Amino acid sequence: MGEKYVYLFQEGNAGMRALLGGKGANLAEMVNIGLNVPPGFTITTDACREYYNNGRQLPEGLWDQVLPSIKVIEEDTGKRFGDLENPLLVSVRSGAMFSMPGMMDTILNLGLNNQTVEALAKRTENPRFAYDCYRRFIQMFGDVVLEIEGYHFEEELERAKEAQSATTGVAVEYDSQLNTESLKKLVEAFKKVVLKESGTPFPDEPLEQLRQAVLAVFRSWGNHRAVVYRRANRIPDDLGTAVNIQSMVFGNMGDDSGTGVAFTRSPSTGEKVLYGEYLMNAQGEDVVAGIRTPKSISSLEQENPEVYSQFTAIAKSLENHYKNMQDIEFTIEKGRLFILQTRNGKCTISAQLRIAVDLCGEGLIDREEAVRRIDAYQIGTLLHRRIDDNAVLNVVAVGLAASPGAASGKIVFDADTAEARGVNEEKVLLVRVETTPDDIHGMLAAQGILTSRGGMTSHAAVVARHMGKPAVCGCEALKIDYVARTLTIGDAVYHENDVLSLDGGTGRVIAGEVPMRDPELSQEFLTVLQWTDNIRNLKVMANADTPPDAAAAREFGAEGIGLCRTEHMFMDQSRLPIVQKMILASTLAERQEALDQLLPMQEGDFYGILKAMHDLPVTIRLLDPPLHEFLPNPEGIVKELHSLRAQAAAFGEGTPVGAADQDKLDKIKEEILNQEAILQKIRALHEANPMLGHRGCRVGITYPEVYAMQARAVFLATARLVKEGVTVYPLVKIPLIAHYREMQEMRKVVVAEAEKVMAEQNMTFSYQVGAMLEVPRAAVTADEIAPYADFFSFGTNDMTQTVFGFSRDDAEGKFLPVYTENKILPENPFAVLDQGGVGKIMKIAVDLTRGVKPDMKIGICGEHGGDPASIEFTETIGLDYVSCSPFRVPIARLAAAQSALKIKG
Amino acid sequence: MGEKYVYLFQEGNAGMRALLGGKGANLAEMVNIGLNVPPGFTITTDACREYYNNGRQLPEGLWDQVLPSIKVIEEDTGKRFGDLENPLLVSVRSGAMFSMPGMMDTILNLGLNNQTVEALAKRTENPRFAYDCYRRFIQMFGDVVLEIEGYHFEEELERAKEAQSATTGVAVEYDSQLNTESLKKLVEAFKKVVLKESGTPFPDEPLEQLRQAVLAVFRSWGNHRAVVYRRANRIPDDLGTAVNIQSMVFGNMGDDSGTGVAFTRSPSTGEKVLYGEYLMNAQGEDVVAGIRTPKSISSLEQENPEVYSQFTAIAKSLENHYKNMQDIEFTIEKGRLFILQTRNGKCTISAQLRIAVDLCGEGLIDREEAVRRIDAYQIGTLLHRRIDDNAVLNVVAVGLAASPGAASGKIVFDADTAEARGVNEEKVLLVRVETTPDDIHGMLAAQGILTSRGGMTSHAAVVARHMGKPAVCGCEALKIDYVARTLTIGDAVYHENDVLSLDGGTGRVIAGEVPMRDPELSQEFLTVLQWTDNIRNLKVMANADTPPDAAAAREFGAEGIGLCRTEHMFMDQSRLPIVQKMILASTLAERQEALDQLLPMQEGDFYGILKAMHDLPVTIRLLDPPLHEFLPNPEGIVKELHSLRAQAAAFGEGTPVGAADQDKLDKIKEEILNQEAILQKIRALHEANPMLGHRGCRVGITYPEVYAMQARAVFLATARLVKEGVTVYPLVKIPLIAHYREMQEMRKVVVAEAEKVMAEQNMTFSYQVGAMLEVPRAAVTADEIAPYADFFSFGTNDMTQTVFGFSRDDAEGKFLPVYTENKILPENPFAVLDQGGVGKIMKIAVDLTRGVKPDMKIGICGEHGGDPASIEFTETIGLDYVSCSPFRVPIARLAAAQSALKIKG
Repeated sequence: MGEKYVYLFQEGNAGMRALLGGKGANLAEMVNIGLNVPPGFTITTDACREYYNNGRQLPEGLWDQVLPSIKVIEEDTGKRFGDLENPLLVSVRSGAMFSMPGMMDTILNLGLNNQTVEALAKRTENPRFAYDCYRRFIQMFGDVVLEIEGYHFEEELERAKEAQSATTGVAVEYDSQLNTESLKKLVEAFKKVVLKESGTPFPDEPLEQLRQAVLAVFRSWGNHRAVVYRRANRIPDDLGTAVNIQSMVFGNMGDDSGTGVAFTRSPSTGEKVLYGEYLMNAQGEDVVAGIRTPKSISSLEQENPEVYSQFTAIAKSLENHYKNMQDIEFTIEKGRLFILQTRNGKCTISAQLRIAVDLCGEGLIDREEAVRRIDAYQIGTLLHRRIDDNAVLNVVAVGLAASPGAASGKIVFDADTAEARGVNEEKVLLVRVETTPDDIHGMLAAQGILTSRGGMTSHAAVVARHMGKPAVCGCEALKIDYVARTLTIGDAVYHENDVLSLDGGTGRVIAGEVPMRDPELSQEFLTVLQWTDNIRNLKVMANADTPPDAAAAREFGAEGIGLCRTEHMFMDQSRLPIVQKMILASTLAERQEALDQLLPMQEGDFYGILKAMHDLPVTIRLLDPPLHEFLPNPEGIVKELHSLRAQAAAFGEGTPVGAADQDKLDKIKEEILNQEAILQKIRALHEANPMLGHRGCRVGITYPEVYAMQARAVFLATARLVKEGVTVYPLVKIPLIAHYREMQEMRKVVVAEAEKVMAEQNMTFSYQVGAMLEVPRAAVTADEIAPYADFFSFGTNDMTQTVFGFSRDDAEGKFLPVYTENKILPENPFAVLDQGGVGKIMKIAVDLTRGVKPDMKIGICGEHGGDPASIEFTETIGLDYVSCSPFRVPIARLAAAQSALKIKG
Repeated sequence: MGEKYVYLFQEGNAGMRALLGGKGANLAEMVNIGLNVPPGFTITTDACREYYNNGRQLPEGLWDQVLPSIKVIEEDTGKRFGDLENPLLVSVRSGAMFSMPGMMDTILNLGLNNQTVEALAKRTENPRFAYDCYRRFIQMFGDVVLEIEGYHFEEELERAKEAQSATTGVAVEYDSQLNTESLKKLVEAFKKVVLKESGTPFPDEPLEQLRQAVLAVFRSWGNHRAVVYRRANRIPDDLGTAVNIQSMVFGNMGDDSGTGVAFTRSPSTGEKVLYGEYLMNAQGEDVVAGIRTPKSISSLEQENPEVYSQFTAIAKSLENHYKNMQDIEFTIEKGRLFILQTRNGKCTISAQLRIAVDLCGEGLIDREEAVRRIDAYQIGTLLHRRIDDNAVLNVVAVGLAASPGAASGKIVFDADTAEARGVNEEKVLLVRVETTPDDIHGMLAAQGILTSRGGMTSHAAVVARHMGKPAVCGCEALKIDYVARTLTIGDAVYHENDVLSLDGGTGRVIAGEVPMRDPELSQEFLTVLQWTDNIRNLKVMANADTPPDAAAAREFGAEGIGLCRTEHMFMDQSRLPIVQKMILASTLAERQEALDQLLPMQEGDFYGILKAMHDLPVTIRLLDPPLHEFLPNPEGIVKELHSLRAQAAAFGEGTPVGAADQDKLDKIKEEILNQEAILQKIRALHEANPMLGHRGCRVGITYPEVYAMQARAVFLATARLVKEGVTVYPLVKIPLIAHYREMQEMRKVVVAEAEKVMAEQNMTFSYQVGAMLEVPRAAVTADEIAPYADFFSFGTNDMTQTVFGFSRDDAEGKFLPVYTENKILPENPFAVLDQGGVGKIMKIAVDLTRGVKPDMKIGICGEHGGDPASIEFTETIGLDYVSCSPFRVPIARLAAAQSALKIKG
């Protein structure tokens, strides 16, 4: 009712962004610091929200506040709306709290009609200018306010050009060649278009024009494009937009007029140099239209030294005022400089880093502010090879963005070929329907991996992320023919050795080779990262399974290993047969024999990783996946059996065979029996829902000897290193705990091995045993589990699966896209932690734990550990650490620092 | 310290069961009501707990309380421990709060040694009796206190018989034939055994004997058998046992002595008649030993009318005192009647019902007490055909107890055969590796179902439970050969038509036919059930999908349908092809066409079930399972393709064929393309973890037209019935909600259909739309979902799967048995609701919901809805209803009443 919906520029300031929008707040701020800004006022975002709550009506009382504000502009400028001597023209622009494309942008020259256009013509002594303004106004208004399809106006424009060409005999190519007479006729034609298409005549009355324009700005907040942009950029839908109404100034009033845009520093590199362009005798849209080439801002120094020095002074003072690089719009009207807008400049992530470090060096901001300014979502792009932003791409298919980074190479269809070529340093991409542990050597040799089947947790995706190699998975458009050695996408057929490129960050598959940019770990980047370390509360650890991974993690600043998976160690080609023997064993003795063979290998693994991470903690998770994942594909065995049986049959039924042949036949028969037994065991291990099956500590409960072997290997490696004088911190983590009894039993198994090794070697060392909280039951009984655990680690991927009841593999390929598309879910909960559900359950766990063990270390590991929004959430619920892939460690360090600053306020 | 550990019988009473154990409390009670009970005292269960807390030591101060209590017995009996004239002998018995086999039971004649035995001989003038008591004492003591293997004593006994036979020339067959001399020698031999096996001499000192006996009783609480029994009977491990020490009386002191046991009513039928047996001149163990046949208690009336009339009076008064059928032990010593024990008699469930109803009729107890007395776990057995308890069974294999009830029949290996035989009223069992929707007709025709693969939620198990048919599933010992039509178990081969029997309540597979008992819905059963209805707070609804099921549910007293699954309607043979067309549709139009065909069928389904349940609510759950469950098995299609390709090849490659043949060939080729397309679609629908996949409301979100069709069918049926004057209460339930937005969208779809039908038919009717809470996210955001739901229903099966992260199918076959065996989990959480985890999350949901909608109806449906412990839990967290299979409705009614009484206290 009595709410204030309208603020004159002089009534606002930069702190009022939420109410006045970014543009309005900055215009107000500039007025207050005495810059020459054309007078105007802002209608608040409150009014926009009220418009939506009100069934899309202007809020009551709004117009009663607009009218006196118009009066103020009229007084300031000496012009009046509809005046026949000195008419007031205004621009109308939207301006939300966060700069946002997709909404109605600008209407210029509002206030023109058949009378005022003549007044403008007379006053400027430039009828062509006046009618050009008028026809532009009608076109813009028709387009964005009345929502008339643009081609109706374009057609008339073409007709006008043809008509003038015919009349004058001079071919008219550009709009700017239209003469006053043609423009006058065009105005009439445009008005007919408006009447025909909108059903009502073009509004002549300036206040009516203004009312409709304001409504159009509010309406545009709900545009499809605006909604999509907000979703992509995590901007809430209920902020609303403000409307800025400002008196027009004209850069097209002659050669002493002009218009331009400039950044106070390079938005591309961050270099401290004025960067921008301008055009004399032009309006803003001419700069964009590309008819005349704008000049670099530095030329202005020669062309108009006075204005240039004014502008550079203003630019400097705006940067100092906002303590940030500014993006400034200006107009020169008859030699007088007006500032139309300033805002913090958008720039590349490299520029962000340089500017933040430079501003800090210049004393404008402190380190905390510098850290706050970097977009944590963007810095990831600096850590991988990526496709050059300027490259023209022939995208032939899009799959799941399974592992970031980009790669080009000749396609090959099997791991052996990939390896053979890779050894010769050829660049190849391994293309498979899906990958299995048998393909690891090929994946290692390839530049990138492309599969037609499988989701974000498929073997290919998991292993590629783990290797830090680009991968596009589940690209269903691919038809792979292993026999013909071809890859078909639609009608296009690619043969082995054809070159493709992958963008694992977006899922794009691109024909041919594309230009790449290498990862950039600039000095500024490293500086900012260093600063984050004094700010953050959260420790940042890495998920790493091998000594090289561990070394990479260390280089990226990881403070330890939060998750060392042991399953990949089992998948090594040389060990897989022993692992399979272990799994297929029918007796404990048989299994123990296989485990005894694995023990020294595992000890070697742990020795390497503990040594690489000396002086830092290494958290080793005992075996987690279902056992059947280590077994060969049954289809392969079925094929093998077919072939063996055919070989046996070739000897002929009942036909006598010689001794040598008999020997061969016997061997084949033996192998048939052997393979049949394996097949039966594999089938018995088959699970309906392996994600919820016999895995994690359930394997440790049913086969404690497996976990005992792994624990022993950890402690043997520990003992060896301690004797060598290396300081190590081994932590053993039990996966998939659901009940405290599981943890109680598994802790016993691990502790027994530690004590055995200490007794055998007559020494002591310290270690910890912790639990992974990955299912809801563990979370809501965390207080019962805590007494048996030295630390807790949330596995948020499994937790998301069980809290939602979503299988990630199935959801991402099938229904999740529909869910996010239709806004059933705001985002993919496997990428961004679902705070409202998964987070709520994590919070319950943290509170229960702190109730019984206030100092228990609790963290998360998994992909959410590298997502900035998720990291911020973990800080708010009081976790101690996050662990993510080595390549995301820098992101996590930055995000952790930013969330600490945010909480600090 | 100062705690009282010892109570003389006269100090206790029946209310002190927790402290004195059942036996001790009853002995005390009998002393207090003036019965002739041999004097004694009880060591408390506190002392036992203290023993375990104390590192298995007698609690401090205990012995100081035992000694004065012995003194009291000595004074009461005029006998003294170790006295050389009139020695005191005592019995030592364990006695926990709940009667429990598996613990040390009894030591008799404690107090005998080389001196006192002579005193006893002299005083009774019966040296043989004295030495027989002595050797029995040493043997019992050696066995249960000193834990010496029994065979050592048995060997000596045999030697003694041989020696006497050799000496006397008369063959000694029974122990009772041993003469005094032999018994004296045997005592010495037994003492040598004790020294040799235990390493210390047999303790002569009566107080030392007593101390060791008390320790043995406490120790026996932790026996393996006792622990197993407690687990099976849900008795907590920390209750502990009491110890009863009582002066001996002897039934073997001549023909005026005797001993016996009697029930005040028949423990088999509940008939009100004294029921029991006795032996004159015998001790308790002689009755059991079976050397002389005990006489029926009624014979005592002739043999000793005075004692008989005393006993009947005592029996009557004990029954009146305890207001319950009593199980009484007595001894007659030289014509004097002693009561040694009384307790509430254990009896069959039929007897429980009759006795409860009779006692109520006699005014001894009220209806609430009668209801309280019935074992809710046992009454289920009355509702199914079952194997006669007395049958001797040849159990050949044990699988999962997938659906209760028992059946015998000739085995057949396919559904068509089962159907053909069933039509001729032959009794057959359908034996399959696993069943599919194609087998439904055979399952309907069979007496029972036996499968070698699949868990408690396999198709066979779910459908069998739903049909109320016995089934044993996942019986991995079976090797089924469809070609040879044989079933092999170990070495035994069963051919088609061989007779087997199944016990679906225990999972047993039995060779041959076995005697059965029909379900018993006695008058007393119905009476008790009626009484429950005025006591319970929880409504009891049934899970039923068809009009006959609904009628059965109504008969069993269901107050509505809590869960009507619609998927089985889709699996009907006549509809499956249309359902498959719907699923395989590539366009919305194609899908809509199939849905239009299904609509009238579904309307008919709902019409039938709503009509059968007129005046009661019917809750219809929209489609829940993953779509691929309705599609044919891909292996079948692969085979079909092989066969088609072979047919096509038979025409000869490139050979010209005639027109007629060409036509055939074209048709085959067309069918090949058709089948290939179906195969591809089925493979595309394949899911890695279908339980967490594209199912439940996720299908409704991605294909809203499917749910719209179902809702429309519900409302068309409703409209038709309303017009016919039938009162119906349709409730529509949306499965697998995880996020409020899902419910918001699905509610819109259902409401739109209701309003459309009302508008079309120009009428109104009422209905409700509710949500199933089956995943943790729904539970912890129940307050967000509540605004869009008229009721909530917990699907505790899915909730258990997601809270634990256990796939039921995989867990029950693989690791859960190890979990319950090793006490990692107290029970299978799919059978008994896990209150500590699943229940905790349910409680969170209920509290959140009541916070925003205090009157929201909340219930559970699924198998836990019929489990007494789970029902009690649902009452404590404030649910409104449970829904279970029709056959469990009586159990649920009883359990609900019992839990209401328990809470009322």
